[in-house]
Amino acid sequence: MKAVPEMRVICGRNEEAVKEAQQKFGWQEYETDWRKLIERDDIDLIDISTPVNVHKDMAVAAAEAGKDVFCEKPLALNLEEANQMLKAVEKAKVKHMLGFNYRRLPAICLAKKLIDEGKIGEIYHFRAQYLQSWITDPEFPLVWRLKKEIAGSGAMGDLGTHIVDIVRYLIGEFQEVMGVEETFIKERPDPSQKGKKGKVTVDDATLFLAKFENGALGSFEATRFATGRKNRLFFEINGSKGSLVFDLENLNRLQFHSTEDSDYAQGYRDILVTEGIHPYVGAFWPHGHIIGWEHSHVNQIYDLFSYIAEDKMPQPNFRDGVRCDQVQEAVEKSIKGGRWVKVK
Amino acid sequence: MKAVPEMRVICGRNEEAVKEAQQKFGWQEYETDWRKLIERDDIDLIDISTPVNVHKDMAVAAAEAGKDVFCEKPLALNLEEANQMLKAVEKAKVKHMLGFNYRRLPAICLAKKLIDEGKIGEIYHFRAQYLQSWITDPEFPLVWRLKKEIAGSGAMGDLGTHIVDIVRYLIGEFQEVMGVEETFIKERPDPSQKGKKGKVTVDDATLFLAKFENGALGSFEATRFATGRKNRLFFEINGSKGSLVFDLENLNRLQFHSTEDSDYAQGYRDILVTEGIHPYVGAFWPHGHIIGWEHSHVNQIYDLFSYIAEDKMPQPNFRDGVRCDQVQEAVEKSIKGGRWVKVK
Amino acid sequence: MKAVPEMRVICGRNEEAVKEAQQKFGWQEYETDWRKLIERDDIDLIDISTPVNVHKDMAVAAAEAGKDVFCEKPLALNLEEANQMLKAVEKAKVKHMLGFNYRRLPAICLAKKLIDEGKIGEIYHFRAQYLQSWITDPEFPLVWRLKKEIAGSGAMGDLGTHIVDIVRYLIGEFQEVMGVEETFIKERPDPSQKGKKGKVTVDDATLFLAKFENGALGSFEATRFATGRKNRLFFEINGSKGSLVFDLENLNRLQFHSTEDSDYAQGYRDILVTEGIHPYVGAFWPHGHIIGWEHSHVNQIYDLFSYIAEDKMPQPNFRDGVRCDQVQEAVEKSIKGGRWVKVK
Amino acid sequence: MKAVPEMRVICGRNEEAVKEAQQKFGWQEYETDWRKLIERDDIDLIDISTPVNVHKDMAVAAAEAGKDVFCEKPLALNLEEANQMLKAVEKAKVKHMLGFNYRRLPAICLAKKLIDEGKIGEIYHFRAQYLQSWITDPEFPLVWRLKKEIAGSGAMGDLGTHIVDIVRYLIGEFQEVMGVEETFIKERPDPSQKGKKGKVTVDDATLFLAKFENGALGSFEATRFATGRKNRLFFEINGSKGSLVFDLENLNRLQFHSTEDSDYAQGYRDILVTEGIHPYVGAFWPHGHIIGWEHSHVNQIYDLFSYIAEDKMPQPNFRDGVRCDQVQEAVEKSIKGGRWVKVK
Repeated sequence: MKAVPEMRVICGRNEEAVKEAQQKFGWQEYETDWRKLIERDDIDLIDISTPVNVHKDMAVAAAEAGKDVFCEKPLALNLEEANQMLKAVEKAKVKHMLGFNYRRLPAICLAKKLIDEGKIGEIYHFRAQYLQSWITDPEFPLVWRLKKEIAGSGAMGDLGTHIVDIVRYLIGEFQEVMGVEETFIKERPDPSQKGKKGKVTVDDATLFLAKFENGALGSFEATRFATGRKNRLFFEINGSKGSLVFDLENLNRLQFHSTEDSDYAQGYRDILVTEGIHPYVGAFWPHGHIIGWEHSHVNQIYDLFSYIAEDKMPQPNFRDGVRCDQVQEAVEKSIKGGRWVKVK
Repeated sequence: MKAVPEMRVICGRNEEAVKEAQQKFGWQEYETDWRKLIERDDIDLIDISTPVNVHKDMAVAAAEAGKDVFCEKPLALNLEEANQMLKAVEKAKVKHMLGFNYRRLPAICLAKKLIDEGKIGEIYHFRAQYLQSWITDPEFPLVWRLKKEIAGSGAMGDLGTHIVDIVRYLIGEFQEVMGVEETFIKERPDPSQKGKKGKVTVDDATLFLAKFENGALGSFEATRFATGRKNRLFFEINGSKGSLVFDLENLNRLQFHSTEDSDYAQGYRDILVTEGIHPYVGAFWPHGHIIGWEHSHVNQIYDLFSYIAEDKMPQPNFRDGVRCDQVQEAVEKSIKGGRWVKVK
Repeated sequence: MKAVPEMRVICGRNEEAVKEAQQKFGWQEYETDWRKLIERDDIDLIDISTPVNVHKDMAVAAAEAGKDVFCEKPLALNLEEANQMLKAVEKAKVKHMLGFNYRRLPAICLAKKLIDEGKIGEIYHFRAQYLQSWITDPEFPLVWRLKKEIAGSGAMGDLGTHIVDIVRYLIGEFQEVMGVEETFIKERPDPSQKGKKGKVTVDDATLFLAKFENGALGSFEATRFATGRKNRLFFEINGSKGSLVFDLENLNRLQFHSTEDSDYAQGYRDILVTEGIHPYVGAFWPHGHIIGWEHSHVNQIYDLFSYIAEDKMPQPNFRDGVRCDQVQEAVEKSIKGGRWVKVK
Repeated sequence: MKAVPEMRVICGRNEEAVKEAQQKFGWQEYETDWRKLIERDDIDLIDISTPVNVHKDMAVAAAEAGKDVFCEKPLALNLEEANQMLKAVEKAKVKHMLGFNYRRLPAICLAKKLIDEGKIGEIYHFRAQYLQSWITDPEFPLVWRLKKEIAGSGAMGDLGTHIVDIVRYLIGEFQEVMGVEETFIKERPDPSQKGKKGKVTVDDATLFLAKFENGALGSFEATRFATGRKNRLFFEINGSKGSLVFDLENLNRLQFHSTEDSDYAQGYRDILVTEGIHPYVGAFWPHGHIIGWEHSHVNQIYDLFSYIAEDKMPQPNFRDGVRCDQVQEAVEKSIKGGRWVKVK
């Protein structure tokens, strides 16, 4: 692979739109048939940013053609598809990466570092919520994200998977889960049938409890009905020696409580994660000059190219996608069965 | 009953200690046998502030003697006892009140008012945590609160019941629950047997999910292992028109988000609940001069006397205690059975 | 002096009102003539809580009668009176204390401790604001606090003196000051003349800059026109090794930044000053159960009695009152002269 | 001018470095002599991002060559130079813009909108601080920013001018100022003379008070010695109807207090300024996905091109630079003279 990545071909079904995008974003060429793209010899890496329902076909085809594959999360419509994708990339021995971009936020990397250094100690609790509110209005239309056949899942797949990945990254593997879901607004105006309503077939909210392999307890909530919360991916970790708190709406900050501080001067420290010594920050602005959400993606792409350049398997990859889908499937089974379900 | 309450008799088992308390706190007399106290004709109201395991006997005896009864929470060791207590006070037609003091915080009263006025709309989510950390040290001794036979329950009974009462007060009745509990430190130094350890027989942490009669979903967590959290009773309510956030460590404040604010100027308002027009505040200090935790109790006693003076049944009372114990029992059953349990 | 203080006599000009207060608050007797009170042999300590314009006469008379004196802040209408008061108490060799109650807040005591331990290092900056908003309405009447002849001063004397005392307590003496004041609403409805307006003769807001003897720079602001701020006494201290932040609307907390923390984990720690090891807290509630504003007064009275019991001169006392009035007078001179004025 | 801006030539003194920059950032050509650049016919717009001491020569030459000019702030080393620059661009009738990038933050634009709509009412107070801490270490070397002949000024010119521009943008013109400055570390290691120290010739901190034409009072502080503060440009505005609070370390948020809210539900609203209806946000990410500091520059360049495309004079421009330098000069005079100085 060459030292400098080239933005060779952008692909979309609508020729006019993809042509415009090609020029706007500086791609060398455009294509409207993804299969043709994959057949090309001058392409080394395929980036799949489509709705979930076509991830599998694209990823499998790309792997079979010997391309490295980057795929947006969630990996697949369901665990079965995810397993097929993993099998394909492993068989083809290509590199594969999954777009859990929040692992690339400096504050979350710092959380990982503090945990790995033992600053939090043995972990007792992980509580996380991913709260949004963009569909609380009952007149909001029945978009594709609200249809199971295209999106695979609602709040759980879209939001819940992010926190599932973060907890796996930070504290380890799930053992058992037990959930509940709700669709608060059951029918919505259907843009494809003027004046008619259609059925919402995904969850508006999913909550679940979890036991982890290391003995910790977890509490998870993913909802699109948290009025006033726009993009609040919040988590708090409590361990025997310290605690951590993060909120995506304040993504340049990490709160850290340490029992190693003097007993009369302990408290949650509000760390502004913008120093040159913090992960990724050296490539950005001076102290205290914050970065935005998009840089979780920028850092991710940087890491992807670094993995390829160094001939290493990217992290997280399709294995993590499968693990995440196992958790999601276990949650769904626990909801249907009304009981605890082991994660594979 | 007389217009002005009199502090007649304080009762305790240790004569020396109760005598000192009598003088220190200004009681007219002291007593070491609670049964004698209840026999006295010059006592109208009994205030039960003992460990939970004697609540039932005292409350039943007091009721049978025709005394009004105030009882600290939790009402009883278990639902059966709670029902006996309720039966006794109802048969005797005495007044009864239960010490869920947080209903008397101005900020929580304001939350109730905003909900009742419809400012929050239809309620979708209630998420609550009561987080403490006073027993995270494995060398902390096996005190009575860690023994089931005296305390009845651990984090669930001590902390969880407070949030159960608050959610019932604010949004309504539980329908079904599903929980998990953990005792992270299973044995602790036993103060009664030098150099030996004894078994912790209550939960260090209990988490549960809930469905409410009004269709809302609830997430609850009570733990004594949240390092760095001292007395964080936190809740967030999301409804179709607004949201509310409260934290007991900042008890003079209530956060309120309203979708009725101009669309470009919406946000969580941080209300300092210290204005004369706020509930109870008129009796306290000027604007912005905060009150402390103890005034939840002061306000509670004021209300108790007012209920008696106006010949009304206090709120909350033993009925609420029974409801709360029904929730707690359902949570415990769900933990044992690993499945959802209907409340009542 | 006896070991246990007795609440002997309460004094007020209106007999009906003072009689009611005597009974309500548990004083043994009442009196309507303060001079008679001071003549009594069975009184050891006089507590002066009147408007400022009578402080001097009362304190001087009390001292001449050999009584210990506690006086509410500000000490006097002006520096001349303050000096007379100091002279009187020193000549009489009585104990004297000044009611700068905020020195008795656990969080401010912790700030003092951290500074004394060298945790902040050499101090560069002290910035403080005391922000209230109770007279922003132009129709708010011309009460006594808005008349110079009774109140002596407006925002400066009422609010500014609190921050002057705190900065002297925490970092040391003033060297030079330079200020500006404004009366935003110049006339207000006069309650004594129906339908008429009277002139506001005190400052609505006073701001001043300061140089300290230790080389630090200070910025001060006292205003009654900070809409939305109810009782925000805020300060931030920056030193070579750390920083401190306090806000009276959150008086149980102190923020502390230390450069001694690991370089990748520095941040302002939010210390909940409610541990048993924190100053005064041992006498109050368990961890995390906050105290209210009134306990700054409770702690102050406790300390006053302790000073008397241990035969020590209370801190702060009339010397501090004189120092504070020197600062205030220098600020006033700087405002009139439009230039820097040395303190003393 | 063409519809699409072209990045034609980048200019720098060091050929190797500028060549690298040309390739890295996508410029068509590079140049090492800025005068040659200005002579070229194919250049319409000059962007001056050098140290302050060469701003004037470049801007005047560019104007004389008929080029539009964008200049980084501060405009010039002193007011005299600033006036020369303004005269040159006005004589040449070219467009000129000054890089006060914070006017382009969505939150500050929202503050402007709320003020213009009358939501804050008559303005009483503006208090602002720009707090950094990168030179608190006495061993930090004597870089060019600490030398008056190159930087013109220290904290005042670098940080103070940003808040001077913001207050002029939001509430209006200065009338009088009165300041103080300090250089806490007077000598520092000189990188150009190994083992020797050189004199710091700029201010480490400047504080000043201000009276505004509209009757408001202002308090300003710019310092590089606020330990723990990395890039805290903070301001609070109090008016008769509301208040606003902003902090650059949380630049996606604006706090807004309105007295028009129900009296029992008033509080500072924490507005996450990330909705599509907020200024500039439509071009960025979905709700709640924050932007970073660099987008103040991106938005500024967008606006610059829009002004040029619409043939309008950019805002802010050199007139604002002159106004800002007038304030700075008045502050400096007030510091030297120890008295109030009128602005202009």
